[in-house]
Amino acid sequence: MKTSTQRNGGKTPLYETVACRISRLIDEGTFRAGDRIPSVRALGKQLQVSLTTVMEAYTLLEDRGLVEARPQSGYYVRARFPAATAEPDMTAPSLSPTTVGTAELAMMVMRDTRNPDLVPLGAAIPHPELLPGDRLNRMLSSEARRHPVASVSYDIPPGCERLRVQIARRMLAAGCPLTPDQIVTTFGCMEAVVLSLRAICRRGDTVAVESPVYYNFLQAIDLLGLRALEIPTHPRTGMSLDALRYALDHNPIRACVVIPNFTNPLGSLMPDAHKEELVAMLAGRDIPLIEDDIYGDLSFSPERPRVAKAFDTKGLVLYCSSFSKTLAPGYRVGWVAPGRFQSDIERLKGVTTIACATPTELAVAEFLANGGYDHHLRRIRRVYARHLALMVEAVGRAFPPGTRVTRPEGGFVLWVECPPQVDSLTLYGQALAAGITIAPGPIFSATGKYRNCIRLNAAWWDERVARAIETLGRLATAMTSDGD
Amino acid sequence: MKTSTQRNGGKTPLYETVACRISRLIDEGTFRAGDRIPSVRALGKQLQVSLTTVMEAYTLLEDRGLVEARPQSGYYVRARFPAATAEPDMTAPSLSPTTVGTAELAMMVMRDTRNPDLVPLGAAIPHPELLPGDRLNRMLSSEARRHPVASVSYDIPPGCERLRVQIARRMLAAGCPLTPDQIVTTFGCMEAVVLSLRAICRRGDTVAVESPVYYNFLQAIDLLGLRALEIPTHPRTGMSLDALRYALDHNPIRACVVIPNFTNPLGSLMPDAHKEELVAMLAGRDIPLIEDDIYGDLSFSPERPRVAKAFDTKGLVLYCSSFSKTLAPGYRVGWVAPGRFQSDIERLKGVTTIACATPTELAVAEFLANGGYDHHLRRIRRVYARHLALMVEAVGRAFPPGTRVTRPEGGFVLWVECPPQVDSLTLYGQALAAGITIAPGPIFSATGKYRNCIRLNAAWWDERVARAIETLGRLATAMTSDGD
Repeated sequence: MKTSTQRNGGKTPLYETVACRISRLIDEGTFRAGDRIPSVRALGKQLQVSLTTVMEAYTLLEDRGLVEARPQSGYYVRARFPAATAEPDMTAPSLSPTTVGTAELAMMVMRDTRNPDLVPLGAAIPHPELLPGDRLNRMLSSEARRHPVASVSYDIPPGCERLRVQIARRMLAAGCPLTPDQIVTTFGCMEAVVLSLRAICRRGDTVAVESPVYYNFLQAIDLLGLRALEIPTHPRTGMSLDALRYALDHNPIRACVVIPNFTNPLGSLMPDAHKEELVAMLAGRDIPLIEDDIYGDLSFSPERPRVAKAFDTKGLVLYCSSFSKTLAPGYRVGWVAPGRFQSDIERLKGVTTIACATPTELAVAEFLANGGYDHHLRRIRRVYARHLALMVEAVGRAFPPGTRVTRPEGGFVLWVECPPQVDSLTLYGQALAAGITIAPGPIFSATGKYRNCIRLNAAWWDERVARAIETLGRLATAMTSDGD
Repeated sequence: MKTSTQRNGGKTPLYETVACRISRLIDEGTFRAGDRIPSVRALGKQLQVSLTTVMEAYTLLEDRGLVEARPQSGYYVRARFPAATAEPDMTAPSLSPTTVGTAELAMMVMRDTRNPDLVPLGAAIPHPELLPGDRLNRMLSSEARRHPVASVSYDIPPGCERLRVQIARRMLAAGCPLTPDQIVTTFGCMEAVVLSLRAICRRGDTVAVESPVYYNFLQAIDLLGLRALEIPTHPRTGMSLDALRYALDHNPIRACVVIPNFTNPLGSLMPDAHKEELVAMLAGRDIPLIEDDIYGDLSFSPERPRVAKAFDTKGLVLYCSSFSKTLAPGYRVGWVAPGRFQSDIERLKGVTTIACATPTELAVAEFLANGGYDHHLRRIRRVYARHLALMVEAVGRAFPPGTRVTRPEGGFVLWVECPPQVDSLTLYGQALAAGITIAPGPIFSATGKYRNCIRLNAAWWDERVARAIETLGRLATAMTSDGD
């Protein structure tokens, strides 16, 4: 980038350089069709060039059809004709684990959410029609009006009191009485988990995780210079406690990250007795447990499952959650109940992001107080249960013989284990080419496991999704017959 | 914490344990006067105790005057009479640098913002009446209505496009043409700086900073396992480039963090020629510059100062800013233009906080497009200039001879250097006892410098602030005469 004070060397006229810069800003979307570009005087001042130069530049742009002068008003970006040539299709590079790291691959799966043309079976995002957007947005307005100063001001950690009071009340139903002062609000569950890891671990420490494990946990562990130890996990009952005990006996484990209720990606639900045993096992060794309960409110049975934190007698469980799967991912409202790490978490939050966004916190607090959250949950649980069941059936019909699929009792993700010939990285590329995004198995492992597995987001179910499952099944089946 | 399934051993009746738990929830604010506590049936189920036990517990609470039964409705927390005994005053512990680290001290200064009874001269927070709260909150509503699905959905990095377009346009006035794709939105400027440090530095690396330096930079540097090298900084012209050159020649510096425009706490404004030289000096050594421009829009002269990023030809400047000082700290809307570190920053943001809060981003985008941001800036710049001038004068009158004070040309903080006998840590404690919060000098240094300095937030000016400055002056003067 050239500085705007640097004058042109003499070869290209200065006005062309200026025109070129504005043209680039138009190409790149800074100014769009119908926008007024800066006045001649303003641009001259900004770029420190003469008004004549700017006039010449604007005339040039006009000649090229990029802008038009409107009398008494200024220069405006012209609308362009629809392009006669189609844009290129989605590229379908062949993906290989030797060239694409899991970090990039995980990021690609996240990025796919930006493309509305893809059938969204990749990232674990809730169905937009199952989010109470209208009611929440009304509360966003009413709460901002009701708290005009607070809503624009810093609310430093532990964060929005009204929200913490509501969360504390709800935690009763999860078997876990908490006071508002034992809660710190965060930007979603992920910030809560990252702050927790940071509060507990030092560089080089080992963290025990489920396997397969939510890919962002692996990325965070890597980012903080920690090491992940993957513990065998049962699709029904969650992390194997025998395996964890063995690992604890043989490794210097500094912390354990678990999603006891409807883990991502397996969907397993750890029985209460296991939760109690897990907490006791770790407490006996003074090892903190980071509990992620982001799917806890999405149980298909009428009982809200308990949380491991309910069994915490030593303040060693850092309980993390958010409303991103039930109310509004875009609000970024999460929290952590950090036990004995309360002051560390408050300080770390203050240093890294200072405070949370007050308006969305107030809106969620109001929704919890007066928005019928329980009623909302009952409704969406039924829908997700149905969508999951339909997708399980469809996978059974479409995928090659030997395929296995989980039967989660909550949440909205499905884990599909294909026959060993199926390469999920190749499948990811082929699916993209067919307009479908999925989450390939290896991003859920630090050691490249689960090559023949995929995670499917089952939040959606409609004709388009049904066809997508058929397509995925055909693609997978083709791999099993290759070379046979 | 006992698990609620654990039955009582026999000594205290179970209903008393239950009553005690509810009573604690009331004491601690989970349930407040007028709130309905859980129904007998609901609590029995939650705690897995009999309905009789809950009934007995609720009767006990009723006897103690904590709750009241309302026929056909349930049990409600009773209002309590105003306490006859006054609550304790603010404590005034004597602060000593051997027992209170700068991290805790910085956190205390931040926490003081939560106490509305304190005269707010500590944290650098804008005056709430100078924030366009009503207009912003209206835009929060209208934008949420206009984008009902987007406002509740994940908008993963680089974040809200509408906002990035508006930011790119504004950057023209700062001499820095950017495209929307060169911007990543963040939770305020601090997340932008932390992500930038993380993208560039590895554990043990040295980062050059101004001295005195914004305390949260020091905390972030410490948190990431980095080392800070404090470079002499002039109250008028900012970081000494000679000193920086010397440091670069003699130290393995990995990055440089600078606030060229109205640095915090000194208020200095680096001349454009220095900015250009700074960028060139670092570029010559391939060292990234993290530029924080959070006060850049608050210049008292009509010219918006240029940014160092305007001189960046190699993509080595990571430009960070936010709207926390001009529009709404509580919205947490910031951004970074990361140059060649774009993809790293997007990935790191995705891992640590996933996405930004869409509603507040949309509201700020709308304010920038149609809210009269420039008009707003002109107004608040005038007010801040006046407040700063009045505070400079007042400090001159009230503080002991030998006191020096900065003359910033933008922003709203003042740096006061008292005679050497003044201990700002002691002054902080004494000021708190007098109902005033200030920022003591040592939190702005990694090496305990600036013991006789304080930073004052000059965003406010009224009778109460005027009296507070007189009080501070008296306290400081008393220290200079002690032992004379």
